[in-house]
Amino acid sequence: MFTPVDNEGNVAVTELKKLVELLVAQDMDGLYILGSTGQGVLFTEDQRKQVLEQVVAVNAGRLPIMVQVGAMTTKESVRLTKHAAALGVDGISSVGPIYFSGNQDTALEHYRQIAMASDLPFFPYQLGNNTMGNITAFIDELLKIPTIEGMKLTTGQLMEISTIKNYVGDRLQLFSGADELMCHAALCGTSGAIGTFYNLWGPVCKSVLTSFQQGNYALAKEFMLEFQHVILHVLPNIWTFLRQAMLLKYQIDIGQTKAPLGTGQKVWDDHEVKSILDKIELMANLSVA
Amino acid sequence: MFTPVDNEGNVAVTELKKLVELLVAQDMDGLYILGSTGQGVLFTEDQRKQVLEQVVAVNAGRLPIMVQVGAMTTKESVRLTKHAAALGVDGISSVGPIYFSGNQDTALEHYRQIAMASDLPFFPYQLGNNTMGNITAFIDELLKIPTIEGMKLTTGQLMEISTIKNYVGDRLQLFSGADELMCHAALCGTSGAIGTFYNLWGPVCKSVLTSFQQGNYALAKEFMLEFQHVILHVLPNIWTFLRQAMLLKYQIDIGQTKAPLGTGQKVWDDHEVKSILDKIELMANLSVA
Amino acid sequence: MFTPVDNEGNVAVTELKKLVELLVAQDMDGLYILGSTGQGVLFTEDQRKQVLEQVVAVNAGRLPIMVQVGAMTTKESVRLTKHAAALGVDGISSVGPIYFSGNQDTALEHYRQIAMASDLPFFPYQLGNNTMGNITAFIDELLKIPTIEGMKLTTGQLMEISTIKNYVGDRLQLFSGADELMCHAALCGTSGAIGTFYNLWGPVCKSVLTSFQQGNYALAKEFMLEFQHVILHVLPNIWTFLRQAMLLKYQIDIGQTKAPLGTGQKVWDDHEVKSILDKIELMANLSVA
Amino acid sequence: MFTPVDNEGNVAVTELKKLVELLVAQDMDGLYILGSTGQGVLFTEDQRKQVLEQVVAVNAGRLPIMVQVGAMTTKESVRLTKHAAALGVDGISSVGPIYFSGNQDTALEHYRQIAMASDLPFFPYQLGNNTMGNITAFIDELLKIPTIEGMKLTTGQLMEISTIKNYVGDRLQLFSGADELMCHAALCGTSGAIGTFYNLWGPVCKSVLTSFQQGNYALAKEFMLEFQHVILHVLPNIWTFLRQAMLLKYQIDIGQTKAPLGTGQKVWDDHEVKSILDKIELMANLSVA
Repeated sequence: MFTPVDNEGNVAVTELKKLVELLVAQDMDGLYILGSTGQGVLFTEDQRKQVLEQVVAVNAGRLPIMVQVGAMTTKESVRLTKHAAALGVDGISSVGPIYFSGNQDTALEHYRQIAMASDLPFFPYQLGNNTMGNITAFIDELLKIPTIEGMKLTTGQLMEISTIKNYVGDRLQLFSGADELMCHAALCGTSGAIGTFYNLWGPVCKSVLTSFQQGNYALAKEFMLEFQHVILHVLPNIWTFLRQAMLLKYQIDIGQTKAPLGTGQKVWDDHEVKSILDKIELMANLSVA
Repeated sequence: MFTPVDNEGNVAVTELKKLVELLVAQDMDGLYILGSTGQGVLFTEDQRKQVLEQVVAVNAGRLPIMVQVGAMTTKESVRLTKHAAALGVDGISSVGPIYFSGNQDTALEHYRQIAMASDLPFFPYQLGNNTMGNITAFIDELLKIPTIEGMKLTTGQLMEISTIKNYVGDRLQLFSGADELMCHAALCGTSGAIGTFYNLWGPVCKSVLTSFQQGNYALAKEFMLEFQHVILHVLPNIWTFLRQAMLLKYQIDIGQTKAPLGTGQKVWDDHEVKSILDKIELMANLSVA
Repeated sequence: MFTPVDNEGNVAVTELKKLVELLVAQDMDGLYILGSTGQGVLFTEDQRKQVLEQVVAVNAGRLPIMVQVGAMTTKESVRLTKHAAALGVDGISSVGPIYFSGNQDTALEHYRQIAMASDLPFFPYQLGNNTMGNITAFIDELLKIPTIEGMKLTTGQLMEISTIKNYVGDRLQLFSGADELMCHAALCGTSGAIGTFYNLWGPVCKSVLTSFQQGNYALAKEFMLEFQHVILHVLPNIWTFLRQAMLLKYQIDIGQTKAPLGTGQKVWDDHEVKSILDKIELMANLSVA
Repeated sequence: MFTPVDNEGNVAVTELKKLVELLVAQDMDGLYILGSTGQGVLFTEDQRKQVLEQVVAVNAGRLPIMVQVGAMTTKESVRLTKHAAALGVDGISSVGPIYFSGNQDTALEHYRQIAMASDLPFFPYQLGNNTMGNITAFIDELLKIPTIEGMKLTTGQLMEISTIKNYVGDRLQLFSGADELMCHAALCGTSGAIGTFYNLWGPVCKSVLTSFQQGNYALAKEFMLEFQHVILHVLPNIWTFLRQAMLLKYQIDIGQTKAPLGTGQKVWDDHEVKSILDKIELMANLSVA
């Protein structure tokens, strides 16, 4: 989920509430707060707490909420976890160590301390290619964390996903993080997807994924190729695209990303944004058929 | 297709004939000769010609034949192409430059000279990550080759496949080369698969892929996870596994790979090989259901 | 320069002052504050300001001071720059964007805004392998920043350093950041070195580098091989090694790194630390000879 | 050492003899035959034997000769080794497995069989980044080969070289293979350099390296930066540059490289080649000073 901001980079509360209402109305499966898409690590600790409080209040129990608490220091992550637990969210997620990425031991200790700070289900990130080679040793350690219930996988390497799935079976819930491989990852055993474009195209993506799993291979193939084409096309200017698209489609202004994120990205022509929105919508209709 | 060899590393003609008869009897879609699986580049020019002559003779037009002609020098590749054309095969394929991999221009010139040596449909390899960045510039040049009809893609990067598919549309036939991502690659628009394990499990793989495309998502997911598990498990000793498995399942001895390929790989316990074969067979039965 | 911390992760002011006095007494060429070695990004904005104020006060103009202001948001970096300028430091340095690393444009805009926040000489980081390919385009943009006077190079790729040196000539001062290649980088045209181990072995390293540049090839070769050996040996538990070594050698306690940095690293045997210190000291004596 | 070829790609014997005479007259430390620079793997087994016979005959014992015998199959490498031993060369070198690069075990078995085919000193290639992580395990195995006396290191990663040097001490002679890091590699403990540009600038490179080791840091720095600049400048069209430069400087025609190597490289302007030659010559004179 995006975290709308105003021109000063502060949380835009009104827009944030509108976005929660939209996602609830769209019957999404849950809200994932303050991840990369939500610029989580670019907010101060106080701002992060404020965002979560607002989302919890507006959501009012309608959708499950998972919050990303990874921060520069383990201590800040622990405080954010305790705050989230006090608010009664449904799950805690965390990115690995930032900047000083360290090794597996460093990440595991970071995760352990966060997990132990509450009784909530814990969903750490896998650490990308750095964990490979000892991926099973890494998973073994994760499985010792009593509250672990799943993982968020950010990789585009499908064999990494399959390897984890084959190793953990149904013991952990795996969420795929690469929007452009949503269906392909499902075929590797992920049970859900957490991504950026689902803010914009949540219902159509959910519909395609469901159809695919029910046997509509042709739709999935056609949709994913177009979706991938769009993602690669907008990528160099993704943040300005997303802002304009959210405004055009839902009249929600998520604001200018906090610098340095997204700085220097071009303003899109609204007609082009509209035409991309229409193309994907058209696929949505196909999917109903 | 494997190229069976005897203890001296020479072509084992009797076994080669048995393998062709097997694949014809299994109603495969075609024969791909002297690729990496067939140890193509480890044979002398004369041996490569001999292999092709034998295959053409035994096949007797029952299946289409594509032959890989990539060699250390462009001149040898050109001679192999002319020989293949004289024998009337159905397609020419080629790996990129070996050892001195060079840049895109080097590969393109290599491909052009091979393609121009005959009128046969030409299917070069994509060049992996090295081509990325300028992948469309590379494809533009390939499309200028009059006889080009497709590409063999060896990558495990699905976005590379989708990018190529979105760029060429139906203009080129794309073959996926990563057995472990057979279904995932199809979802990115490949129209066929050329790989190693199809020698052993051709019918079951073909059946799963067809079922997947007809809507059997559950089977594809279950099979691919198991198939991936097997592939990763046998990989460190793949050549001894394949030899023992072919012998147990089809009584065809493909021989010891030509050194240095496959040297130092362990002898498998036949019971374990059998149990792996059975596990995959069981999936074949599921696929009928 | 390290930033000593107490058991709560707060700045250990007394130890910090002792460290500044030590480096001044050792006649180092300057103080580089709050870089990676100084855990800069793990402190709050207020703590970073406090550290700089203490260092400026204790140093009292004896050594030039450069401060690293890179932070999660450009705005925080700009505030840190203005604070540093008000205190009258000698240079501003900054790491590239953290977490959301973005592309060259993102980094350049980040750097421009930081540079424009003061009149102080600016020394941004080069961005590692990501900048390569367009390294000259990147440098061209950096050279347009009026206050740029140099760069901090963190790479172990010597050809990257030489390429930059050949491109900028004497227009920029280049500082090498890989301690283990201190002399090799000098041979590529760097004019100084900023690193971690110079806290511990500043005089001996400075002496070796000077001797090398004056013609003592044999000493440089012998010392660098031993130094590299030590660095690789301590690397998996570098932070506990550095803490114990600083305590043994200088009676300065830099404290336990702020988690997740350095968590899970083993306690060293003091005798081994002592023996490593002695081995490098011995080289220092050789260098005098 | 280059292997001059005629327009048909056959060995140009007259030019080959002239090149040997040149290198002998220049008092080089030895001749390294049929490596990458010598297009070794692009020749047939018979041609490789012919080249070696010619070189041995012309050299007539004046310089030590090392021959690279790595080929597509271990058997061919073994035959080339026996042929070389019969001719009485001074050392055998070999690249690792080609195309099917395999793992460490594959390479080690390949090397063992080659080494055991003669009593000559053996100098295998290190295998680049693939060996890292287990580099010491790899070296341990190499050291068990009775005839091993050194290694040819092709890496530009200096820490890889230092790690090997620190591990083997004086037990093995290490040759650096990256011309552009000739002096930097020496500082890591290599005892010689085997490269491409030494055909063209052997005496000046040897003179600079010697001066550097005798204390002329300033010359080494100045020369290496210019040399690196030239290498990067000519790299995209290196083979046409080398051919034209050898012709202009020594009136030796090394011919057009065997395709696909070097295909599509531009013809250089002779004035530019001359000016590059002059610039490096000027450095040679400096080195005398």
